[in-house]
Amino acid sequence: MKALRFHGPGDVRVDEIDEPTVRPGTVKIAVAWCGICGTDLHEFLEGPIFVPADGHPHPLSGETPPVTLGHEFSGTVEELGEGVEGLAVGDGVVVEPYFVCDDCDPCRSGNYNLCTRMGFIGLAGGGGGLGEKVVVDARWVHPVGDVPLDQAALVEPLAVGHHAVERSGVQAGQTAFVGGAGPIGLLLAAVLKGIGVRTVLSEVSSARKEKARETGVADLVLDPTVDDVPARVAELTGGRGADVAFECAGVDAVLDLCLEVVRPAGVVVNVSIWGHRPVVDVATIVLKEIDLRGTIAYRRDHAATIELVASGRVDPAPFITARIALEEVVEEGFDTLVHRKDTAVKILVHP
Amino acid sequence: MKALRFHGPGDVRVDEIDEPTVRPGTVKIAVAWCGICGTDLHEFLEGPIFVPADGHPHPLSGETPPVTLGHEFSGTVEELGEGVEGLAVGDGVVVEPYFVCDDCDPCRSGNYNLCTRMGFIGLAGGGGGLGEKVVVDARWVHPVGDVPLDQAALVEPLAVGHHAVERSGVQAGQTAFVGGAGPIGLLLAAVLKGIGVRTVLSEVSSARKEKARETGVADLVLDPTVDDVPARVAELTGGRGADVAFECAGVDAVLDLCLEVVRPAGVVVNVSIWGHRPVVDVATIVLKEIDLRGTIAYRRDHAATIELVASGRVDPAPFITARIALEEVVEEGFDTLVHRKDTAVKILVHP
Ligand SMILES: NC(=O)c1ccc[n+]([C@@H]2O[C@H](COP(=O)([O-])OP(=O)(O)OC[C@H]3O[C@@H](n4cnc5c(N)ncnc54)[C@H](O)[C@@H]3O)[C@@H](O)[C@H]2O)c1
Ligand SMILES: NC(=O)c1ccc[n+]([C@@H]2O[C@H](COP(=O)([O-])OP(=O)(O)OC[C@H]3O[C@@H](n4cnc5c(N)ncnc54)[C@H](O)[C@@H]3O)[C@@H](O)[C@H]2O)c1
Repeated sequence: MKALRFHGPGDVRVDEIDEPTVRPGTVKIAVAWCGICGTDLHEFLEGPIFVPADGHPHPLSGETPPVTLGHEFSGTVEELGEGVEGLAVGDGVVVEPYFVCDDCDPCRSGNYNLCTRMGFIGLAGGGGGLGEKVVVDARWVHPVGDVPLDQAALVEPLAVGHHAVERSGVQAGQTAFVGGAGPIGLLLAAVLKGIGVRTVLSEVSSARKEKARETGVADLVLDPTVDDVPARVAELTGGRGADVAFECAGVDAVLDLCLEVVRPAGVVVNVSIWGHRPVVDVATIVLKEIDLRGTIAYRRDHAATIELVASGRVDPAPFITARIALEEVVEEGFDTLVHRKDTAVKILVHP
Repeated sequence: MKALRFHGPGDVRVDEIDEPTVRPGTVKIAVAWCGICGTDLHEFLEGPIFVPADGHPHPLSGETPPVTLGHEFSGTVEELGEGVEGLAVGDGVVVEPYFVCDDCDPCRSGNYNLCTRMGFIGLAGGGGGLGEKVVVDARWVHPVGDVPLDQAALVEPLAVGHHAVERSGVQAGQTAFVGGAGPIGLLLAAVLKGIGVRTVLSEVSSARKEKARETGVADLVLDPTVDDVPARVAELTGGRGADVAFECAGVDAVLDLCLEVVRPAGVVVNVSIWGHRPVVDVATIVLKEIDLRGTIAYRRDHAATIELVASGRVDPAPFITARIALEEVVEEGFDTLVHRKDTAVKILVHP
């Protein structure tokens, strides 16, 4: 079968490899669609980061490059390993793409996304969504019912948004501020909207502001270079400030703005994975008793996320901005994300 | 009567002023002891900060300098205004030294310490603990029962610690890390110890390490310049990390250490009021899903704090390092805090 594999920095290839085979407790999936994530691009440009380095096999997968990429995928169950229940051949599914140890303190506390040896299928080994077939432990497979499989491929980044929203504790009827309308900010806003939260999105790129407006995920789309964002948020909330804010840009000024627009005793969730250490207005965190919370990936978020899509409260369709073949990932996919990033939200690959 | 009043930067004077008189709903207190706080010193050196500026009366007190200083005080009820219940002449009391508006959103949510117009008695007007007598609204007066009045003067900074501990959600039997053993770090550690939390204190000053050891508030006193603090915390917690950490130094490296030693899904409470914007390792907040929480002053903490002292679970006595007269505040009090800071924990003034 064909699979797009990472061999080294700048070196990903469509290889012909053996099809993986089911083992007891696992499920074989024919991949339908796989989204390209910023992480995949970073591996290509500067990796290995989440991919294990040569000579340093991942502690849980035991693999080193070449490894198949792709962790945002949907597909159809093709074969069930011994003892797998609750799934049937032909089911549409998505995968929570984890390797976890089940043994460290976070795992034992149920926080498997914080596993000290955690790896991602599609980065750390175990095949990936940029291959025709993949075999994964049944525990990570979530049936999507009638959700079309192209839309289902967006469940993974939507689950990132769902987990961030859970971390914030925001309730329907409250007001959220989202700083940055890249794929993560947009999909997070869609989740907020889906659960009935009033959402203000702040973004500087015209294409992304346009996307935010056209998808209707935000009640208000602002641009900090032209709008007085704190004043507009104050106006919208009767002077109170936003109940929660989400940093989705990885930019010091955006985190500042989150801390500024949130109300006293509000919550700021930091979603972005910073490449540098920002300068933070901690005095405001103290004087307003803000909670600044980190969020990483997801845990037990997939069922609720799928339900948001299945029920129509979140419509992933407008966020699919291209569909390409495996052979086009570098030239169409990565290149777009490098040179015309703002025109893309989710590029789906059909392996 | 005599009162130490702030007239301007570098200008505090023992003035002879009229005794305040009770109004309905207020209580007249004969001050016994008043602690000197870092804030008082900052007002003296660089004020007005919390003190209103000339020509800008505080919105709630209506006052401008000169204002009486002192907000960490205990005393005896001398007279009750009309309608005051639950207190009697002769009662030993402490005061939660607030002006709040009762009208802003935080006040209406019960978060009166986050009142948007908040002021402190002893800084914003309303007299203060560095005067012989003070009249305050009955709602802020807390009886201390049999607690000696010198010890009771430490209830205010202990309540700061108690509120920080409440914000952390730490439970008896868990492990806390405290960075910085100034008055705030030491008293916070005493509260932690008092509620049965295992406490690791980190400090660089010899005098303060010594104080931490001699008072027994910490299970382990470490010095980051000689000890491998993360390794020692890991050792103590079976590799888990501290459940919560408290930044009480206002130093970037201490906040870094708090984020490093706390376990995944742990809580870091920032107590210090930063004079600069620190560079923060937000990536660690994200990857470990840490909650970084601000804490300011106290709300509904006084009763529990008094109970900790009354029951003997917290002993404030060893933290009283000097007792001086009103006339000695500048030469003995402020001067010690500037030039021999590490030798002092709490300097009490008897007006
Ligand atoms: N925590 C997690 O589990 C998780 C998962 C996936 C991605 N991420 C992180 O989330 C972040 C966002 O991901 P993405 O793919 O959407 O990235 P992205 O770079 O495509 O989006 C960031 C957006 O912020 C906008 N922006 C920049 N400066 C701004 C400003 N001053 N005001 C408003 N907007 C501004 C940019 O124009 C861009 O549209 C990244 O850091 C990524 O690594 C986190
Ligand atoms: N949040 C609140 O409600 C509240 C209330 C009162 C005071 N505060 C703030 O709390 C902070 C502490 O107050 P304080 O009076 O104890 O101050 P302090 O300056 O006396 O104490 C700070 C301590 O940190 C130590 N320190 C410095 N660098 C260190 C390092 N690298 N490692 C370990 N220790 C180090 C110092 O030696 C000192 O003992 C101040 O910022 C103060 O403004 C906050």
